[in-house]
Amino acid sequence: LLSFATSLESSKGFPLVRNINELPQSNYGREGLSHITLAGSLLHGMKEIEVWLQTFSPGSRTPIHRHSCEEVFIVLKGNGTLHLASDVHGRYPGHPKVFPIFANSTFIIPVNDVHQVWNTDNNADLQIVVIVSRPPVKVFIYEDWLMPHIAARLKYPYYWDEECFDTPVRDEL
Amino acid sequence: LLSFATSLESSKGFPLVRNINELPQSNYGREGLSHITLAGSLLHGMKEIEVWLQTFSPGSRTPIHRHSCEEVFIVLKGNGTLHLASDVHGRYPGHPKVFPIFANSTFIIPVNDVHQVWNTDNNADLQIVVIVSRPPVKVFIYEDWLMPHIAARLKYPYYWDEECFDTPVRDEL
Ligand SMILES: [Zn+2]
Ligand SMILES: [Zn+2]
Repeated sequence: LLSFATSLESSKGFPLVRNINELPQSNYGREGLSHITLAGSLLHGMKEIEVWLQTFSPGSRTPIHRHSCEEVFIVLKGNGTLHLASDVHGRYPGHPKVFPIFANSTFIIPVNDVHQVWNTDNNADLQIVVIVSRPPVKVFIYEDWLMPHIAARLKYPYYWDEECFDTPVRDEL
Repeated sequence: LLSFATSLESSKGFPLVRNINELPQSNYGREGLSHITLAGSLLHGMKEIEVWLQTFSPGSRTPIHRHSCEEVFIVLKGNGTLHLASDVHGRYPGHPKVFPIFANSTFIIPVNDVHQVWNTDNNADLQIVVIVSRPPVKVFIYEDWLMPHIAARLKYPYYWDEECFDTPVRDEL
């Protein structure tokens, strides 16, 4: 009695239900990273949330960074560490707390806290779902944990948003 | 050289990194559902995004519903269907399009579109990550696809938010 949709296309030219295995992935110039935007501001017209699927090869990591949006992680596979400096009142982040992260764990990054995620496993990939609010993300990057907050460099557009910013597609979203 | 965090507690009394296997889950009165709030407005003080992990037993489904927030799904396990009525200009949703959904697929529900997710598999659970903006979610529920939009019933607080609304904990968030 159910009729399957004859057109699988959404209004933006993407299939509504997408096979993640068939979505474009890239390291966007970052060694050891595989990034897929599951739901994106520039890519899909999202206004309030953005969702990524990221895989970090053994030893790879995010930059040390902060952003003034909410961020939630779900670890699907692997093991690693979350490094988090919560003192936003100091002149620089300082020595971070280190939390083990593992498959089937979840964590919320407090807004503006400086943080970094590492794959510390020697053999296995670390696969995570990352959700951010207020896309596209505006990220401040630190070279190390002693870099003053005011010296952190704004990386905007962020790695995977650079391509879209360069194309006129954005005007159609 | 790394020192692990001596306290795993976040400022709200939750461990910062949480084992999903140890988080509270319930069906909240809905047959066949297992719901876990991974990051919640009432539970964790989220202001812009909320993240759920839900498992639907064979044959179970969400209500037919709409909401004026963004919503993203990631299917982790199982098979089912997304039923989606995109005509927001009619008096009622009408016959929905039906899209197959499957493990490792993802989809975005357009804001205010009436939709329903079914586990159509006879044997296996359907496990999904659900992300919504503007929490706590305000949901309008339809008894069937021919119910007029104006007759849809606002269910607020939603199933898993009811407990928290009843307790004074909310004032502390
Ligand atoms: Zn971050
Ligand atoms: Zn929904």
